[in-house]
Amino acid sequence: MSAVNRQCRLAARPSGLPERGDFQIADEPIAEPGDGEVRVAVQYVSLDPAMRGWMSDIPSYMPPVGVGEVMRAGAVGRVTASRHPRVEIGDHVTGMPGAQDHAVAAGDAVFKVDPAPAPLPTYLGTLGMTGMTAYFGLLDVGAATAGETVVVSGAAGAVGSATGQIAKIKGCRAVGIAGGPDKCRFVVDELGFDACIDYRSEDVAGALREHAPDRVDVYFDNVGGEILDAVLTRLAHRARVVICGAISQYNAPGGMRGPSNYMSLLVRRARMEGFLVFDYASRFSEATREMAGWLAEGRLTAKEDIVDGGVGAFPDALLRLFRGQNVGKLVLRVAGE
Amino acid sequence: MSAVNRQCRLAARPSGLPERGDFQIADEPIAEPGDGEVRVAVQYVSLDPAMRGWMSDIPSYMPPVGVGEVMRAGAVGRVTASRHPRVEIGDHVTGMPGAQDHAVAAGDAVFKVDPAPAPLPTYLGTLGMTGMTAYFGLLDVGAATAGETVVVSGAAGAVGSATGQIAKIKGCRAVGIAGGPDKCRFVVDELGFDACIDYRSEDVAGALREHAPDRVDVYFDNVGGEILDAVLTRLAHRARVVICGAISQYNAPGGMRGPSNYMSLLVRRARMEGFLVFDYASRFSEATREMAGWLAEGRLTAKEDIVDGGVGAFPDALLRLFRGQNVGKLVLRVAGE
Repeated sequence: MSAVNRQCRLAARPSGLPERGDFQIADEPIAEPGDGEVRVAVQYVSLDPAMRGWMSDIPSYMPPVGVGEVMRAGAVGRVTASRHPRVEIGDHVTGMPGAQDHAVAAGDAVFKVDPAPAPLPTYLGTLGMTGMTAYFGLLDVGAATAGETVVVSGAAGAVGSATGQIAKIKGCRAVGIAGGPDKCRFVVDELGFDACIDYRSEDVAGALREHAPDRVDVYFDNVGGEILDAVLTRLAHRARVVICGAISQYNAPGGMRGPSNYMSLLVRRARMEGFLVFDYASRFSEATREMAGWLAEGRLTAKEDIVDGGVGAFPDALLRLFRGQNVGKLVLRVAGE
Repeated sequence: MSAVNRQCRLAARPSGLPERGDFQIADEPIAEPGDGEVRVAVQYVSLDPAMRGWMSDIPSYMPPVGVGEVMRAGAVGRVTASRHPRVEIGDHVTGMPGAQDHAVAAGDAVFKVDPAPAPLPTYLGTLGMTGMTAYFGLLDVGAATAGETVVVSGAAGAVGSATGQIAKIKGCRAVGIAGGPDKCRFVVDELGFDACIDYRSEDVAGALREHAPDRVDVYFDNVGGEILDAVLTRLAHRARVVICGAISQYNAPGGMRGPSNYMSLLVRRARMEGFLVFDYASRFSEATREMAGWLAEGRLTAKEDIVDGGVGAFPDALLRLFRGQNVGKLVLRVAGE
């Protein structure tokens, strides 16, 4: 356990792709929890595309991270001090403690996890917000049912890799879209998707004619931009387009690009719908139980891409995400288990 | 009854705004109906934004009108010959006979209307596809309920004027968006909307803060483009964006502009959904009965904008629509009643 609390703070609001200078690494004394609070020694920090939005001064579903504040981040760690009646020292918990070594948080805002059945990083991925996003986005917002064709962009990423696997478990045809042959191989060979389109070398709309011959019933979109437009041309009657993210557009200097083919929603009587996973909080335990069962049965593969370097490596890890260099859930190791 | 059948045919596929040279006016002999067919002396032809799509060689929900073919058009007229057991000479019917004086059509594809309770043009507007589009788009796709705020673009147009009035009847707050002070006055003073924003002189997003202080529960979009983007910034939680049309984009030389603010669907957990009125055919009689009742009670105003000149004036009438010069349902008078 380090003697100081190293933090990664937001130093400036980025324009386009975040740079190292947009962050500041700072050490401060380890704090003591107040009444009802706990202190967590962070072990793994989650890297998420949504972080780019939190760094911008644009009204959204959460207030932006203030300049000078610790970067907001999901993480898993071990409780080292507690003034909350239901949390004990030694408990493993997840929550949003931020990109720092030692976080003080409200005890009500952390959730105990059991390190026995799954490695801790899995609680940031398949058994965490990532998995919940895939589960509720696909099954609730997308209303995917057996026999339908599900297309997922960012298919080798955290949410995408879980989404396609859940689609397969539910009896759908799963077609991924990812960047590069290695990711596509991973998506098909290791995750069991029926096919994966390499958007860097293939024409996405053309490849969908081959791999989604009955058109696309559910499109789970993590990327936006040209890929969203391409899939819109191949929607099935009454298709559902699930808007989960738009990572291709978050750093676009000219601002977001809208889907110019959106009138296919009319031609196909289709809908495009957004969601936030937090709205499903009351059903997380139900979904996590089902996901853990699939993991235990070997029907679901949890893939984490763990990078080292501690809190000081947070900026580089985040850039890795926006450069599309991760395979599976990208996690920063802060301290060992 | 003219001795020849004057037709307005598609002569060339337009690029951008249609021009007179994209049409050809031609006379041909009046045809006799074959078995199961009827002949209709067309009295009023409907002008619809969707016609622009039918003129393009782009796959859509209907095949394009072929170059050299009579322009597809809804119309109302009187039967002058029948070889169909359920249609008699003298019946008034609606259908899609095209932009011509004397159409031969399948008897199963025309629908009898009663000229007593409403003028014939109303069967192209409020009691026709226009009214059905407003009714099902607002109540079924948009799922508008009492107390909600409904915003309608193209509010002085055919579908928009009906949509806002139905919203008011159903107990919603109705805010229109239209071009110019005359249209806005018509929308508020004659149709009874709560407010109307003049997009030519007002900042739409700013005006929505004033006129839709509780944000927008249902946005019924007839125009697309900048106005769609502006309304997206003011959506309420779980809002529904009904995609009915995008008249501002149909003639854009650079192609359709997509809604760059579509990620507000995620922030607001909202959906954007397209529809085609034909899908509701089995419920037209139910909806028409309800609309006719509202008309009879004076709760619904049917406003038609009738232009003269016969079939030869079809190209100019269509341009009037795309230039936003009509107020209410634009109809071309071909022959008197």
